[in-house]
Amino acid sequence: MAPMPLPERDLIAQLRRRVSPEGRKRRTGRAKASILVGMGDDCAVLRIGSDLDCLVTTDFSLEGIHFRRDWHPPESVGHRCLARGLSDIAAMGGEPVAAFLSLALPGAMPQSWVRAFFRGLLRMAEQHHVRLAGGDTAESPNGVLADIVVLGTVPRGQAILRSGARPGDRIFVSGTLGGSAAALAQLRRQPRQKADERHFARHFYPEPRVQLGRILRKRKLATAMIDTSDGLSTDLAHICEESDVGAEIDASSIPKARVAQSRSVELDLALHGGEDYELLFTVSTGARVPRTLAGVALTEIGRITSSRKIRLHRMDDKTMPLKPRGWEHFRKK
Amino acid sequence: MAPMPLPERDLIAQLRRRVSPEGRKRRTGRAKASILVGMGDDCAVLRIGSDLDCLVTTDFSLEGIHFRRDWHPPESVGHRCLARGLSDIAAMGGEPVAAFLSLALPGAMPQSWVRAFFRGLLRMAEQHHVRLAGGDTAESPNGVLADIVVLGTVPRGQAILRSGARPGDRIFVSGTLGGSAAALAQLRRQPRQKADERHFARHFYPEPRVQLGRILRKRKLATAMIDTSDGLSTDLAHICEESDVGAEIDASSIPKARVAQSRSVELDLALHGGEDYELLFTVSTGARVPRTLAGVALTEIGRITSSRKIRLHRMDDKTMPLKPRGWEHFRKK
Repeated sequence: MAPMPLPERDLIAQLRRRVSPEGRKRRTGRAKASILVGMGDDCAVLRIGSDLDCLVTTDFSLEGIHFRRDWHPPESVGHRCLARGLSDIAAMGGEPVAAFLSLALPGAMPQSWVRAFFRGLLRMAEQHHVRLAGGDTAESPNGVLADIVVLGTVPRGQAILRSGARPGDRIFVSGTLGGSAAALAQLRRQPRQKADERHFARHFYPEPRVQLGRILRKRKLATAMIDTSDGLSTDLAHICEESDVGAEIDASSIPKARVAQSRSVELDLALHGGEDYELLFTVSTGARVPRTLAGVALTEIGRITSSRKIRLHRMDDKTMPLKPRGWEHFRKK
Repeated sequence: MAPMPLPERDLIAQLRRRVSPEGRKRRTGRAKASILVGMGDDCAVLRIGSDLDCLVTTDFSLEGIHFRRDWHPPESVGHRCLARGLSDIAAMGGEPVAAFLSLALPGAMPQSWVRAFFRGLLRMAEQHHVRLAGGDTAESPNGVLADIVVLGTVPRGQAILRSGARPGDRIFVSGTLGGSAAALAQLRRQPRQKADERHFARHFYPEPRVQLGRILRKRKLATAMIDTSDGLSTDLAHICEESDVGAEIDASSIPKARVAQSRSVELDLALHGGEDYELLFTVSTGARVPRTLAGVALTEIGRITSSRKIRLHRMDDKTMPLKPRGWEHFRKK
């Protein structure tokens, strides 16, 4: 950890009280990994079981880019901050163990905002038996800046990579798509009006599919996997690139999210909208995939091909290239 | 890893070429830890030897707080960014293995700056056999924002903590103190004039004491250890707080850095100036400590007491409390 001005030391002291003592010494049984030293030293010290590999992911949450303080309540910002990291662990079939938060706050930040941010983050951490084991604090020159690191484990050699898809594999996605992007579209249409968090839970309080990822790994169902953080078209392109394959997707089968008044989102949002944090994975031809797993619906949406192209079979029966339209940076315009 | 706009994907692609293929598969022999998957998946995958504990540290480097673009050349910013993390690993007696960089850049950032930043960072990484194994990228709403994570290893149960100091232990510091703060003082006096990097190498290109930390751990010399990132008075207070002890320091023995024209820095800079990244450690009464180790001078500066107070024995023979004066945030005023 790093240089720290005194007011921020108070914050760390508060946090240490909240996560200790059971946190600093407790063995996270399932993961066969333990945190020997959490906050309060130069490094955290972890002991990882000898039959495990170690997973590491880092994700920014920057004000004006990944969230807006006038649109996102602080609980949601804290929740989403950690959810992004957990979702990456889920996408490897892993078990999250510890989180490290680097947090820079502007000088004039209300304490109530900071407390609510940590409430959202620590609630999510508790749900997933993840311990906040360190990080860094600083004064921010501008806006709230957070970077979350999640460390997880997976049995040796069993991490589910993006590179394992083979021609003929069927493509599945969990849950529904486009729900998070629909909230953004709504907020952009009416920037001065708060979006109803209940109608847009997928955006404000996404649920990383950690349990689903774990089961897919245990049953050896997924040949390749990624989380839909960038949007289906982009995340599928990542799998195809890393696996050196192509794909064909059937538009009519895409599970579109339902939002306010139970409308389904438009196909474009489901194809390209990011931050749903569902799992996109491929399965060998012969394998049987249940309709739901860990309480989440699984939908077959297409097939891996050897062509290196990604194509969309549209509802008008035409087939056309599906370009990765990427994840649009979420900023003030 | 996380959502990423397309221009940033180019940066990642460049980096992947620079660190692969040997980087992604190479076994870092000494550390008995290997990086199975680096960049290009949801998480990095590492395998840690079963006789090792795992160390994790994270450190911000924020423009306007930790550096200024008009004062610090980009190579120095990259070098210092990684040095901060390596110094934390050194302070545990650890072996650095992998680094993860979260980097957010403003839209209009010159490519030449970014290239030079990575040159500084990757040169430091190479020197210490550390692999850049992942991270995140984003557009920054304001200024360059970096967060470095360093993962390291240490033989099981042998991490040198801040909490191991006992009354009677002697206190040592490596190298000299105040050299980094002297550069800041100079830059503040003449803000429009660049400081000569050769005269202020300790500020622009600090050398984390990884080898020294490793030897102190192997020889079981240090009972407690910390790096002097916040300044001696603050870092000593951290050791005393975690060890539940006090300390007496002898002002005449403090090794003051020599800077431009071979002047020694003032005592105040050596006592309170941060970012020297030396090692401050305690040693049991009976142990013999060489004058230099790993090419770095070691100086005895005081003794641990049972009083919980930290006191300074001044050159005028008076003894007074030594208050932690903290690390001053380094920002535009």
